[in-house]
Amino acid sequence: MRKSIATVCLSGTLTEKLAAAARAGFDGVEIFENDLLASPLTPEEIAARAADLGLTIDLYQPMRDIEAVPEDHFVRNLRRARHKFDLMGRLGVDTVLVCSNVSALARDDDALAAAHLSRLADLAQESGIRVAYEALAWGRHVSTYDHAWRVVRTADHPALGTCLDSFHILSRTPDPKDLEGIADIPGEKIFFLQLADAPVLAMDVLQWSRHYRCFPGQGGLDVTGLLRRVLATGYPGPLSLEVFNDVFRQADAGRTALDGMRSLLALEESAGASRLPAPVVPTGVAFAELATSDPQPTEDLLTAIGFTRTARHHTKPVALWERGEARVVLNTATRRTGTTLSALGLESAEPAASARRAEALLAPTVPKHRAAQDVPLDSITAPDGTEVLFCATRRTGLPSWTDDFTFTGATPHPDGHLDHLALTQPWHHFDEAVLFHRAILGLSPHDTVELADPYGLFRSRALSASPTGPHLVLNLAPTPETDDRARHIAVAVTDLVTTARDLHTAGAPLLHVPGNYYDDLAARFDLPDAELAAFRELGILYDRDEQGGEFRHCYTRTVGQVFFEFVQRDGGYGGYGAANAPIRLAAQRR
Amino acid sequence: MRKSIATVCLSGTLTEKLAAAARAGFDGVEIFENDLLASPLTPEEIAARAADLGLTIDLYQPMRDIEAVPEDHFVRNLRRARHKFDLMGRLGVDTVLVCSNVSALARDDDALAAAHLSRLADLAQESGIRVAYEALAWGRHVSTYDHAWRVVRTADHPALGTCLDSFHILSRTPDPKDLEGIADIPGEKIFFLQLADAPVLAMDVLQWSRHYRCFPGQGGLDVTGLLRRVLATGYPGPLSLEVFNDVFRQADAGRTALDGMRSLLALEESAGASRLPAPVVPTGVAFAELATSDPQPTEDLLTAIGFTRTARHHTKPVALWERGEARVVLNTATRRTGTTLSALGLESAEPAASARRAEALLAPTVPKHRAAQDVPLDSITAPDGTEVLFCATRRTGLPSWTDDFTFTGATPHPDGHLDHLALTQPWHHFDEAVLFHRAILGLSPHDTVELADPYGLFRSRALSASPTGPHLVLNLAPTPETDDRARHIAVAVTDLVTTARDLHTAGAPLLHVPGNYYDDLAARFDLPDAELAAFRELGILYDRDEQGGEFRHCYTRTVGQVFFEFVQRDGGYGGYGAANAPIRLAAQRR
Repeated sequence: MRKSIATVCLSGTLTEKLAAAARAGFDGVEIFENDLLASPLTPEEIAARAADLGLTIDLYQPMRDIEAVPEDHFVRNLRRARHKFDLMGRLGVDTVLVCSNVSALARDDDALAAAHLSRLADLAQESGIRVAYEALAWGRHVSTYDHAWRVVRTADHPALGTCLDSFHILSRTPDPKDLEGIADIPGEKIFFLQLADAPVLAMDVLQWSRHYRCFPGQGGLDVTGLLRRVLATGYPGPLSLEVFNDVFRQADAGRTALDGMRSLLALEESAGASRLPAPVVPTGVAFAELATSDPQPTEDLLTAIGFTRTARHHTKPVALWERGEARVVLNTATRRTGTTLSALGLESAEPAASARRAEALLAPTVPKHRAAQDVPLDSITAPDGTEVLFCATRRTGLPSWTDDFTFTGATPHPDGHLDHLALTQPWHHFDEAVLFHRAILGLSPHDTVELADPYGLFRSRALSASPTGPHLVLNLAPTPETDDRARHIAVAVTDLVTTARDLHTAGAPLLHVPGNYYDDLAARFDLPDAELAAFRELGILYDRDEQGGEFRHCYTRTVGQVFFEFVQRDGGYGGYGAANAPIRLAAQRR
Repeated sequence: MRKSIATVCLSGTLTEKLAAAARAGFDGVEIFENDLLASPLTPEEIAARAADLGLTIDLYQPMRDIEAVPEDHFVRNLRRARHKFDLMGRLGVDTVLVCSNVSALARDDDALAAAHLSRLADLAQESGIRVAYEALAWGRHVSTYDHAWRVVRTADHPALGTCLDSFHILSRTPDPKDLEGIADIPGEKIFFLQLADAPVLAMDVLQWSRHYRCFPGQGGLDVTGLLRRVLATGYPGPLSLEVFNDVFRQADAGRTALDGMRSLLALEESAGASRLPAPVVPTGVAFAELATSDPQPTEDLLTAIGFTRTARHHTKPVALWERGEARVVLNTATRRTGTTLSALGLESAEPAASARRAEALLAPTVPKHRAAQDVPLDSITAPDGTEVLFCATRRTGLPSWTDDFTFTGATPHPDGHLDHLALTQPWHHFDEAVLFHRAILGLSPHDTVELADPYGLFRSRALSASPTGPHLVLNLAPTPETDDRARHIAVAVTDLVTTARDLHTAGAPLLHVPGNYYDDLAARFDLPDAELAAFRELGILYDRDEQGGEFRHCYTRTVGQVFFEFVQRDGGYGGYGAANAPIRLAAQRR
């Protein structure tokens, strides 16, 4: 199905926006009036530029406050419209968006609105133009899609149809029954479909719309369900993104356009309108890779926290460290100073299928700079720059990345597996990262939570392939100055007090937790004195959920940009100890 | 009156917060529980630290979800409270904040709530502690101040009183009649008063409260009116700021504390509870000072736009340029490259009184590095670093800054005066700047407007001393990366087409405005063809307000970080052409 994007979604000048839309593979654009007015190109030059890029101009938008006004105003509005229809002829665009009137002049008179739209459509028709009438959620009298359709039906004009917009429809949190009316609209009278998602926020709908829209799949609205209903009418397309978002306004246009195209591809699939290679949900984390030019501090840390160096790579300065089923690959083939979490391996039932899915959803694939004798590995780059490798660890019939390693025969500590990885995301790319992991890897996002750091608020969102698959926690740094490469690796153990005592004995640099925290634990929970004393001694944090599930966890200090967490989960606790995050963050700041 | 600040208002660790509060002159603090829990200091050490800094700890906050729950839960809550009362004894704080219950367990039973609060107060009294019960705006059953007071009155316990919070009360946009109940509360039963303002936003009150509060005078709530009512009860203090704000969480704590103290001083004055030196509202802009190490580009620009060099300073490499009553001082005693707007002179009826007001409101005064023979000038530094000088230009009985200059005898162009100055504000300091200019200079803020730049949204707020006084326009840059020193000087002329033609002839670098803009003007307004042609030729922008007031304006290109605007106002137009800002911003980006 044809795909378009409104220029208002993208940052920069009109020519930058057109180029970015074309590079991302869009078929067309909606041109937002202000983008045109601010452009030094003539309409003819803009039309030629779009054509050169293989883009059609699918919509000119918006015309406002046209209908249901006193006659003298309407005559002036028609005069204005005539200018715009001339302009559209020069641009070569045949559909104009008319938003329902928001002005105080508008009358609550559907017959008058229909008569005015009909006269407007007469004028449009002379120029070969179609008028798409849309209900703004804050329209003065017409604010629902079915009301706009009634007006269009009353006017009964071949050059007049309706425009449906997922935000305007879904932001009113309609009952599913309220959406049944979409089926009453003939597909050929739906002249345009604009798509946007949004986080579910209780706020003024105008502000919500103008600042917080996002691409489908990044928010909380059921855009898929809406699209199914619209396609069932026979609407032939295009699918067009119209998103007003403060972050997108500042971000790189090419990257935003690619994110938008990925969103439309995933949306089309979820609505059953296209088929992509099916997602292969990862079943676990094969390994986390740390990169550093000076391995000593990281090796010291790994040793102190009970990891054992079990193997080295055939051809590269790369070592494998293990503790139970938790594996860390230490790569010293880098010139970066410090230690970063640079890659992660995900267990895939079929790595090649994982890669096909990723490619279909526009994930950048990583060139395989591997020696001839190495096992070929499919891998992609996540929005935060982390390399994601699709692995089949020691499974029959498939090459295993471990075959590139020579094992020393050392036996690692038996207790441990990777519980989750927490990845701080760069400013601007949080929603993109959520969609990326959701659409490409098939992970399910949890609710967003906010964590108070002494110097700002973190936003945090977990994604998981339940119940045993990998958990990723994406954190959005509070300010652009915050280090957006901070990462941590959480290892689950069976008895945290024992583990923490071992770590303490081995000289592991555990994070110190203030005594005040334990005084508060004593007030909040009826913990045995001995256990509380052990927590206090070892810096163990504690949380309990409403079902009685328990979470014990402790942290190492940070080496480079990486630290480790050890966790013990009991009774079905499903979170990440968010209540303790302010304590941990403050301790790390010291 | 004693002044306090909640630690949650400030960024950093607890000890940083205490130091910042003390430096700003606060008498006490409210300690937010999480700040204590995250601190490595013991309660005794925190108490000692506060005492060393001359701070009392006025409130411990908050206790939540205590009252009107099933008995077994209440017994557990009392156990938790006992721990907290012990802790408060160690901290040396005698008042605890209890927020009205928000949990699903809470019962809608005022008698039970009163009985529980009474038992809590019994326990508190044993430790010499007072309980201040506050209605959260989103409390499950108790959400208004008068309801909380009824519960307190029913409990009738000497250790139980109420806490009033301006945000929780005013965010419900009460009718003034709803506030009359404050008079029914005896002052000695108001155990605490928390003060915050907020911009008027239509959004979920919990989110509004947690992210968007600001200091009194920075938002849109009538905090002054509320304070008058509370003081009328005999409430003896303290006045305490409690502000949750995402920006404050990231900003420098010392600066935020000073901003908060300025807010309280101005609030106390506006409520009639204290007297400060009266504001001396400026009557005009004496001059704008540009600083540059290389004057040539700026001199070329000034010459081309009709300014004449009329004088030079006795002792410094500083020249005066004039056009009509618009004066620009060009200061080359700087090593900064580029050209910046570094200072502005404001006409004051009594410069020394202006300075006294500024000093009373904690404005940083500028050391007078002036030669012995120079006229002494009182000046302060605004939050964005601009020096503000209080001037009496050629008024009898007062020294005039012009006496430091030797005039060449050149006669400047007669037409022009400074219309407004637009100053981009650094990230983090927008609200501080608004309060600074409002409280210290007595300027009145207008509504905030948003302007779309190709790479983000600017927020813009004008302040003026109507009708003839200076207008300042403060712009908040859309991203931290935006140049926050960008400034412009707007000169009003009587006939802009003539002026623009003169500038064009003189080779002034005027900003080019796209032809599409003029096609749109033709569609929107019925302008005479000749005038529209002149606008198009000269790059003049046009706006008309609903009362028919007209605004014509054009811009020079930017030299360094400064550009000029020429404006013509007719028919009482009071704005700044915000509708044209996206066109101007896009043109400047090219």
